[in-house]
Amino acid sequence: MAYIDLQNDLPGIRGPMAYRPETGGPLNDLAEILLHDENNTLSRGERELIAAFVSSENDCFFCQNVHGAMAQYYMDWDMPYLDAVKKDYQSTPISDKLKALLSIAGNVQKGGKQVTPEQVEYAKSLGVTDREIHDTVLIAAAFCMFNRYVDGLNTWAPADRQVYVDRAPMRAQQGYANAHLAK
Amino acid sequence: MAYIDLQNDLPGIRGPMAYRPETGGPLNDLAEILLHDENNTLSRGERELIAAFVSSENDCFFCQNVHGAMAQYYMDWDMPYLDAVKKDYQSTPISDKLKALLSIAGNVQKGGKQVTPEQVEYAKSLGVTDREIHDTVLIAAAFCMFNRYVDGLNTWAPADRQVYVDRAPMRAQQGYANAHLAK
Repeated sequence: MAYIDLQNDLPGIRGPMAYRPETGGPLNDLAEILLHDENNTLSRGERELIAAFVSSENDCFFCQNVHGAMAQYYMDWDMPYLDAVKKDYQSTPISDKLKALLSIAGNVQKGGKQVTPEQVEYAKSLGVTDREIHDTVLIAAAFCMFNRYVDGLNTWAPADRQVYVDRAPMRAQQGYANAHLAK
Repeated sequence: MAYIDLQNDLPGIRGPMAYRPETGGPLNDLAEILLHDENNTLSRGERELIAAFVSSENDCFFCQNVHGAMAQYYMDWDMPYLDAVKKDYQSTPISDKLKALLSIAGNVQKGGKQVTPEQVEYAKSLGVTDREIHDTVLIAAAFCMFNRYVDGLNTWAPADRQVYVDRAPMRAQQGYANAHLAK
């Protein structure tokens, strides 16, 4: 049970977002631009995977399942494959570019100063653009916020992972903007 | 030097915010509501102090100085007193309520699941409201993002701490909304 009375029964981040829509608005606006906006050379699937990976590293059940399901949906992956990527992406056949981005995101998760010039240069050598590095860093940083918001308030989350998979197509269609206003 | 070409010389978070105003907008909207909006039972000084403390724990020079200077300004503190609070707030004569909030914020910084029911109950026993707990958790979580954004891109920051102190009254007057559009 959440540490505070959220005045609703919504799961995960949706509870505190509906409780405090003044902050829910900018939070969802940020998620919309970073994850759903089409004006991006990173695919929606790649961006959702970065979010799911960081959420997994932060051990946030709700976020890693919401965004893992989104990544599965966009990438046309099944859950075991997604889990393998979250657990040890270097051993999976995802692209070198995506591995380089997950490497940067993983270090952002540990702390801003953990990102090294070498890993950024390596990403650039693979053709990763400045804007893609920017968005990777900010997605990873943002999920260090979202994960702490969800778990720091001890919100509840559906235990059945299929719930998140079933919901992904709706979220893909609607995006994140104003999601805090939905009941 | 920043890891990517930000196409401007602005310090700290102002560089990437101006580089990517699509995300700078929601980020500043969030900062405005959390730190500057007057519709809050936590004072601006208390909220800025939570931001400065978390930024100090994350070892982010730019953010801890920007928001430390804001806290100093609102609280009418000098720099040595602010530094003493950042370093060991339990040994300072700040209020028990503020100590309880910093305790929660400090655990959010370590990870969402580090917040304990006992520290939340203790805060409530001192009269801390649900909304104040919500905002404390989200401010702490948000600075785990802002700090990683600033340092993960290796942005530069003025080394002279007085620069931040001198700038605080202007920021207090203008707030954060649209700060990414200023040159």
